Amino acid sequence: MAGANEGFASLSESYLFPEVARRIRAFQEKYPEKRVLKLSIGNTTEAITPTIARAMEDKVRSLSRTDTYSGYGDEQGESALRTALSRHYLKEYGVSIDEDDFFISDGSKSDAANIQQIFSNESIVAVQDPAYPVYVDSTVALGRGGTLDQSTGRYSRIVYMPGKRGNGFVASPPDVHADIIFLCFPNNPTGAVAGRRELEAFVEYAHRENAVIVFDSAYSDYIETEGIPHSIYQIDGAMDCAIEIGSFSKNAGFTGVRLGWAVVPKALKSDDGKAGLLHKLWLRRQSTFFNGASNIAQSGGIAALSDEGRMECLGLVGYYKENARIISEALSSLGLSFTGGKDSPYLWLECPDGLSSWEFFDHLLSKTGVAVTPGSGFGSCGEGYVRISSYGHRSDILEAVSSLKENL
Amino acid sequence: MAGANEGFASLSESYLFPEVARRIRAFQEKYPEKRVLKLSIGNTTEAITPTIARAMEDKVRSLSRTDTYSGYGDEQGESALRTALSRHYLKEYGVSIDEDDFFISDGSKSDAANIQQIFSNESIVAVQDPAYPVYVDSTVALGRGGTLDQSTGRYSRIVYMPGKRGNGFVASPPDVHADIIFLCFPNNPTGAVAGRRELEAFVEYAHRENAVIVFDSAYSDYIETEGIPHSIYQIDGAMDCAIEIGSFSKNAGFTGVRLGWAVVPKALKSDDGKAGLLHKLWLRRQSTFFNGASNIAQSGGIAALSDEGRMECLGLVGYYKENARIISEALSSLGLSFTGGKDSPYLWLECPDGLSSWEFFDHLLSKTGVAVTPGSGFGSCGEGYVRISSYGHRSDILEAVSSLKENL
Repeated sequence: MAGANEGFASLSESYLFPEVARRIRAFQEKYPEKRVLKLSIGNTTEAITPTIARAMEDKVRSLSRTDTYSGYGDEQGESALRTALSRHYLKEYGVSIDEDDFFISDGSKSDAANIQQIFSNESIVAVQDPAYPVYVDSTVALGRGGTLDQSTGRYSRIVYMPGKRGNGFVASPPDVHADIIFLCFPNNPTGAVAGRRELEAFVEYAHRENAVIVFDSAYSDYIETEGIPHSIYQIDGAMDCAIEIGSFSKNAGFTGVRLGWAVVPKALKSDDGKAGLLHKLWLRRQSTFFNGASNIAQSGGIAALSDEGRMECLGLVGYYKENARIISEALSSLGLSFTGGKDSPYLWLECPDGLSSWEFFDHLLSKTGVAVTPGSGFGSCGEGYVRISSYGHRSDILEAVSSLKENL
Repeated sequence: MAGANEGFASLSESYLFPEVARRIRAFQEKYPEKRVLKLSIGNTTEAITPTIARAMEDKVRSLSRTDTYSGYGDEQGESALRTALSRHYLKEYGVSIDEDDFFISDGSKSDAANIQQIFSNESIVAVQDPAYPVYVDSTVALGRGGTLDQSTGRYSRIVYMPGKRGNGFVASPPDVHADIIFLCFPNNPTGAVAGRRELEAFVEYAHRENAVIVFDSAYSDYIETEGIPHSIYQIDGAMDCAIEIGSFSKNAGFTGVRLGWAVVPKALKSDDGKAGLLHKLWLRRQSTFFNGASNIAQSGGIAALSDEGRMECLGLVGYYKENARIISEALSSLGLSFTGGKDSPYLWLECPDGLSSWEFFDHLLSKTGVAVTPGSGFGSCGEGYVRISSYGHRSDILEAVSSLKENL
């Protein structure tokens, strides 16, 4: 029978962003003269930079001439882009990665979800709590979640690694076994970054438990603090136990253009202690279920990794980081307690007066017109917090900050 | 343990195209002065047309200005593109499909493979034999293949629907139960097209067996014969039992740009006879494992569906069809037996003198320098045939045809 897949059917509906949108609509209907000031968007707002735009325009023009047209590319991604990434890792992180270990994709969300396909269906998945919802959702969809506890929103087979004030929102490795460990630093939603020691603990855990770390480095360009690793491969021993997922979304503004990469090293070991198989299976997965990222986006990616491109991208990142600084200053002046906003585009604000995430969301919206994202939507440890995003035009950020200062 | 996925690990390595490449290399080493004339490529070679290129250049420029920049799009695809597809189906096929039933993707290969994720793991998959390898490969990777019979290359849990000379290479519905039926017309590799009656038989089968048809219409623009359906939805009753997968690759030349769509109607029923669930699960799958097709490609897709765009795309299709006509004429003049090449870019040539696919491949290459694709690589019913592709520059096609006429 063409029955529905149980994993997908058991995935609870996304509630967070639709509910945020619903409450904003209700507010606007009640106060049609007021403008909602959104600090809730995890989406880029500033233009693609000149070097990158030029490269993509050139690519379109070259596709429109028969002598320079090209069709299907390499499913693993253009060699020039993989070479550029390999050089980028060496130059900026001092890490040597073979270009064949890079797999170009249409973005880190796809990779973070699809990567689980190469692992055994019995795999135990560990996630940070709070976390970007895709790690849990893809685990559940693939039938690895177990049963949902409605009261906590937690799944029985998933290992949760709490990020709380006590550990600076940097989870420790779990004290039980897990096979696949999702880590995201700088973290979405908390804005926390992990130091060398903290990442070393995860690499040690992975070696001890024959586990694989999936390290989501989508926000690595936001790191400014010296000594904070940008890549998991800056940790000794990570090459045989870690996959890294990277993105052009938040530094080159490619949220809509779609381009990312995964590093699945040939040195990566599976549970039998042998290297090579997981690399081979990911290649097979990408060759079967994917047909390469858009060649226009890939031309943009190559340009983004050139010297000029890097300068421009870091300029773009600097713009959002200045937004984050402005927001941080305002929150501090209001005496509010928060983390993040320094090496990250996100700020993680503790709800004052013991309010819950949604209570504070409602309070903020009604008093100041500012919309944020309730932390409880990212996991049960997010309760009592809200995420503030620094993505937005400067003028909108300044307006939101003014309203916070005047009306909160 | 971070063990490897059994389905992916049991997927046998792709042998066809690497082996074709290896034999071509060996030939070139032996005869360095000879040029290999490739009629083996299923890849577009002609430039993107002006209307489409202009739209994509404009999109890049609009992304490079802050006032017109946009980030994440709708995971289901831009509304304007889904509206354009809905109009296209109504205008060209007389079929009314709600724009919410379209899901924009990065291409039909991804959709053909990923669509299986929404179905039960117990699903029995039926495929045409010969067939585009992705249907079988994705079935095996998802653990639904059963065991491989090394001697036939067939999997125990897959239902094969033979396409042979006797049925004009148009398979009939199987006489056993299947849950998911992959159909591709115009067919890759045989070039066969299915008439209304033949498709009606599949729709009847699907209704009887509570099965779902996945109809791959990637080559529909190549149909010129009156009365041949371009879309499965031109068959009465298909809306509640069929998914259709479409592509901009072979008409707009988007093999490298990457853009396609799936129609998963809200009316589609799952095995409990209820409509809506499969549509909802595909939306959930795409929202969790995907983040939308490149917005630049989507702008190109919208332009491709405009009146000018359609004219240009059909011109591009006409170019390859003229190639196919030239090849057909040559094969006929040589007294060779083949099908396809009329409503399709592919010709399916019976190997003369009882030669096997690889024997004839070697014979053709050594005598004429022309490379084709051995039919046995597409399934056991492909043995004794080779696929000839009409993708290529006209001058290359003419050169190949001359060599065939002179040297075969």
